[in-house]
This record gives sequence, C-alpha cells and structure tokens, in this order.
Amino acid sequence: MRILGIDPGSNATGYGVIDQSRGKLVHIDHGVLRPPKDLPTADRLAFIHRELLQIVSVWAPDACAVERIFVSANPRSALVLGQARGVILAALGTSAVPVHELSAREVKKAVVGTGAATKAQIQAMVQRLLELGKAPPSDAADALAIAICQAHSSKLVGLGVRNRRARRPRSRGSFALRNS
Amino acid sequence: MRILGIDPGSNATGYGVIDQSRGKLVHIDHGVLRPPKDLPTADRLAFIHRELLQIVSVWAPDACAVERIFVSANPRSALVLGQARGVILAALGTSAVPVHELSAREVKKAVVGTGAATKAQIQAMVQRLLELGKAPPSDAADALAIAICQAHSSKLVGLGVRNRRARRPRSRGSFALRNS
Repeated sequence: MRILGIDPGSNATGYGVIDQSRGKLVHIDHGVLRPPKDLPTADRLAFIHRELLQIVSVWAPDACAVERIFVSANPRSALVLGQARGVILAALGTSAVPVHELSAREVKKAVVGTGAATKAQIQAMVQRLLELGKAPPSDAADALAIAICQAHSSKLVGLGVRNRRARRPRSRGSFALRNS
Repeated sequence: MRILGIDPGSNATGYGVIDQSRGKLVHIDHGVLRPPKDLPTADRLAFIHRELLQIVSVWAPDACAVERIFVSANPRSALVLGQARGVILAALGTSAVPVHELSAREVKKAVVGTGAATKAQIQAMVQRLLELGKAPPSDAADALAIAICQAHSSKLVGLGVRNRRARRPRSRGSFALRNS
C-alpha cells in the first residue's frame, strides 16, 4: 500500500510518499514544489499541476491524502489557497488516485499525540517514525505526517475498527470531498 | 485575434469564443461546463481541466480573459470558487495562452453600459452584439461578455489609448495575475 500525502500551498506544496507494508511504514520520497515566483499565476498553477502529475506517474500511489483546509477568516487567502488546492485535486482526479481528506488537527494528533503540535515537533516525529537521517523541511514533513495519518486510518479499517469521531464509514473516505 | 472568455464556477463554468477582425466581433462558440454532481470533487475539477484543455486545443485562442473574483464575505465560497478558478488558470498556463483578468463590473460597463447590469441585460446585449439567433445561457453569456470586453481593451491598446482606471499599462495585462 503506497500513500501520497500532500500539504497544499500556492507558494510551497509539500508532498511525501510512504509505503505501508506488514504494519511497518517505509519512507519513499518527499519534497516541496515551489513554482517560480516571477511567473504569472496561471503558469505557477500549471507548474504545480505538471509536477504533481509527474510525482504520481513516478510513484504510482494507491491512495492520496490531502490536508483539509481550515477556512480562515480571510476570504482572499481562502481564494489563493483554493486555487492551488483545486489544481492538486484535479491532477489527482486525472490520475484516478482515490483522494482522502484529513484535518491538520487529526494529523497532528495521530503523529505527535496532540492536535496543538508545533511544526518542529511534527518534523522530529516524522524523522523518528520513518527513521530518516535528518528532519525533512517543514512543508514536506507535514505532507509525510498526512501520509502517516492516512496509513493509520487505513490500518484501522483493515482491523474493522472505526475512528470514534468519523461521521461515515472509513471505506467511503475517498468520497469525503464529494460535496465540498 | 481570437479571444476566449471564461466565467469560472465549480458547478458551472461558462466559456465563449469570439474573433475580432477589422473592428468587427464574430461569434465562434460558447457553452457551459457542468461537471457531473455525483462525482468526488477531485474528479469534478479534473473534468473542468480536461474540457478546458480540449476547448483551447480546438479553438486555439490568442488570448484569454477570466473574470476577476470579487472575494465575498464567505471564505468557504471563496475556497470552492478558488479551486475551480485554479484549475482553469492551470489549464490556460499549460496551454501557454496569455491570461487577462477583468472584473465583473468593468465587463458589465463595457457590454451593457452600466456596472449594475442584470444577467438578462447581459444576455440580451451579447445576443445583439454578436448577432445571435437567441440569447445564450447566462453563464455562457457572461463568458462571451468577458471576451467582448477583452476585445475592446485590446483595441484600445492598438490605438494607444489607455483605460483611465488601469493601474498599469495594458500591454502587461497578461501579468495582472502575477502576485495574486
């Protein structure tokens, strides 16, 4: 089971790929997509789309988890972040990879143990859980944390255990974005 | 000079194609992209991306104009609209079509004569200006109006006339989205 985690952003989109095999998590790849700042927005979004298609093509994930966006008080930020997120979801839709959605809070809770974890704590825990030589950059660490959290969710499904806070069966997680 | 106008929306994205030749505007095509409602969001966004690439491939526009989004008070709507808009911009970026951005108000003013024009007024004026047998559906009429407004702006550039309210030279219009 190969999982791609994505932390969407218009300036920096983190991604992380892990394998889940016999209950063990194995690090495969991670990185941060940074579209050149001097390009027009359309070209920057095309950059994210192209790079993500490439990552999906190279690593062929079985599932993908994307951070659910906490809609802030600022509609302007929501629009800009939405643009990047839309491009990412479209690339995943085009690649026919099932998309799951996880909130930052549940990712932090799953990986660090508290929904209020700092970025440094996430980097340290991701480094330890995946036995990496050094901590990944923050955006990539967030993406790897998302992938790890998704792996845990999948394992629970495999064992027939439900997340207590889940509103619908986990097996339908790939439709969580249906009406958003 | 062939211009593609787009009115982005997550449920309905209007598009309209016109030619500007010797000061005359000629209708080429219009329509509304409606991703199937029962699909997950990622697949709906991939649908918009794919259809738009197809339209650009068929009609090979020299320029494209997209409605600038008036960021409403609702961050949730801004996020959803942003996702659709991001996909549209990415498809245009991938196709290397220069992208211009126009506000709904300046489009209405250019086509109907008042920034407070109703949807029915836009449909009627688009039908008259492009000599159509019947009024296009509202989303497509908006997209055609955007294309018409962009054609007017281009003509002004050709004549060396500046829009009084423009903050930067029109010839750099394709970079208007640079830092958004």
